[in-house]
Amino acid sequence: MEHPENNEAYKGLVVNAGIEQPSSVNPYLKRKVKKRQLSVNEFVEGIVKGDVTILSQAVTLVESVRPEHQATAQEVIERCLPYSGNSIRVGISGVPGAGKSTSIDVFGLHVLEKGGKLAVLAIDPSSERSKGSILGDKTRMEQLSVHPKSFIRPSPSAGSLGGVARKTRETIILCEAAGFDKIFVETVGVGQSETAVHSMVDFFLLIQLAGTGDELQGIKRGIMEMADGIVINKADGNNIDKAKLAAAQFRNALHLFPAPDSGWTPRVLTYSGFYNLGVKEIWDMVYEYIDFVKGNGYFEYRRNEQSKYWMYESINEQLRDSFYHNAKIESMLQEKEQQVLKGNLTSFVAAKSLLDTYFEDLK
Amino acid sequence: MEHPENNEAYKGLVVNAGIEQPSSVNPYLKRKVKKRQLSVNEFVEGIVKGDVTILSQAVTLVESVRPEHQATAQEVIERCLPYSGNSIRVGISGVPGAGKSTSIDVFGLHVLEKGGKLAVLAIDPSSERSKGSILGDKTRMEQLSVHPKSFIRPSPSAGSLGGVARKTRETIILCEAAGFDKIFVETVGVGQSETAVHSMVDFFLLIQLAGTGDELQGIKRGIMEMADGIVINKADGNNIDKAKLAAAQFRNALHLFPAPDSGWTPRVLTYSGFYNLGVKEIWDMVYEYIDFVKGNGYFEYRRNEQSKYWMYESINEQLRDSFYHNAKIESMLQEKEQQVLKGNLTSFVAAKSLLDTYFEDLK
Repeated sequence: MEHPENNEAYKGLVVNAGIEQPSSVNPYLKRKVKKRQLSVNEFVEGIVKGDVTILSQAVTLVESVRPEHQATAQEVIERCLPYSGNSIRVGISGVPGAGKSTSIDVFGLHVLEKGGKLAVLAIDPSSERSKGSILGDKTRMEQLSVHPKSFIRPSPSAGSLGGVARKTRETIILCEAAGFDKIFVETVGVGQSETAVHSMVDFFLLIQLAGTGDELQGIKRGIMEMADGIVINKADGNNIDKAKLAAAQFRNALHLFPAPDSGWTPRVLTYSGFYNLGVKEIWDMVYEYIDFVKGNGYFEYRRNEQSKYWMYESINEQLRDSFYHNAKIESMLQEKEQQVLKGNLTSFVAAKSLLDTYFEDLK
Repeated sequence: MEHPENNEAYKGLVVNAGIEQPSSVNPYLKRKVKKRQLSVNEFVEGIVKGDVTILSQAVTLVESVRPEHQATAQEVIERCLPYSGNSIRVGISGVPGAGKSTSIDVFGLHVLEKGGKLAVLAIDPSSERSKGSILGDKTRMEQLSVHPKSFIRPSPSAGSLGGVARKTRETIILCEAAGFDKIFVETVGVGQSETAVHSMVDFFLLIQLAGTGDELQGIKRGIMEMADGIVINKADGNNIDKAKLAAAQFRNALHLFPAPDSGWTPRVLTYSGFYNLGVKEIWDMVYEYIDFVKGNGYFEYRRNEQSKYWMYESINEQLRDSFYHNAKIESMLQEKEQQVLKGNLTSFVAAKSLLDTYFEDLK
């Protein structure tokens, strides 16, 4: 049965010509004037003086994707390079739920007792996907967020890991030039970001929980082997024995790993971030490590290796970018991949035909 | 004082015109005629029929660096692809001294008891540097080397890891097309080759020795986490208790690792390659694993992922090759690296200036 409406032209919602309405914005309030961007000189002078507002603006510039911002940012970083490097850089990782925020809060207060300034940065390329946005909510670090000698900056917004990590590394340079002599870099412990963090810090601290292994499911393979120190959180109340047992298990496991290049033997400690127990021992370990690697020359060696690493990493990333974002490659890639998956084409012939197309196109 | 000779023209050794000498080669022996290279069709037909001589020649072609050999090799591989894939591929790794050769000998005989054919390949990009050339001396596998159903092929000669691994992977395809339904890929356990092997096998077996950890120094970090099974060799005589203790330690350590994507829980077993004890149990484990991952779909999924991996790996390797072997880049690279190391240039600015030069040069 046909519906009568079907034969009638649909008239939709009737909209009559109206009269102009007054703006809902009070015209007497002056529009906020957009601030003039600082010059490279102003940025550098401000940063070197330790002006945190200017430092913040410079970091925003570093994180900007606009080419003119990038150009200025690179000049500022370059000019800041001679003032950078005088800090200890500590990577802090752990699965969600391990108590990273509480820990960083008490760790930060502890290291600031000796004076100096602390910058807390983060790398989380998947911040949209991860449950709690990393450092996104500064108030998770109740005491540190209001401390006059601390600078907390959330992870640059989502992008490729390489891009996000690069921005964090550049931010370290700016913070050091601004006189921050302690840098924490936080990661969420579930992705590949640990490798990136490991490539920009002096000491890599892994926060774990006591347990029989189930909690470890979230830790990506290989991360444990990067740790210079493993610290078991929530060693308090009824949980102390479990934490000590976990520490013993981790110690045994570490024996099975080959020694790191630094010559340092990674240690396992227990602590309670919430009750502020065992925190001093953790930082005594970190300082002992720094003395140790400064003594045997590994500190300097590692930092040089890291600089080289980032140069080559940056080159390789941009080579891949140029290839995979080439319009012709983008239009062919799926099909070649399918042919490889179906077993009609070897991986190497597929690669060759794509590469031939790419280099032809560049000419 | 001047020597009289200095004023005389040097006459050198006096050579008189001689008489022609007869050839030292018996002219009645016919010169060995250089064998005509087979056509692609002849290669493919021979391989698919299981002709081991033709298979050997095809592998030699795969390993050749001459472009015309490479072209033929790629065609042969491509034509063999539809006949490949019907095998189980097992990677076998362990430090020198762990008894890999003896173990592979008894493992091979064991898997051949059930019928079928076994190919033993190797990856060792550093074969010149390593103490014992890997599989170079077939006689190390006394029984397998004379077994009619086995095909043993040493590692392709030294080259980049990517190149060597690629050749081994292509050889797997040829061997499978020739009806080899079991493939072992051996590596020496001290380099990055394990990652490459792991990317071309279904099961990764790590051979270890009993000990307190010192033996592990030679094992590259991260290798243990790749293992689907760890087997402790030399569990015989007075060594049985030590081997069992080592197995227990490894089991504990594995608990601390996250579960592999396959859903399989890696196992630790003890055996004696020399006395042929516990070998059946190892292969029962491997077969159980294969059944398990074929059941849950991971077997197929992993092989597809591996094909994709090799396509992208091959692309990325050749992109890097093109860049780092560019004449202009080669002449600039050292200086830029030095500027980065001295802190005069950021890693990213150095990378950018090199990339700009490279892409300009390609035009």
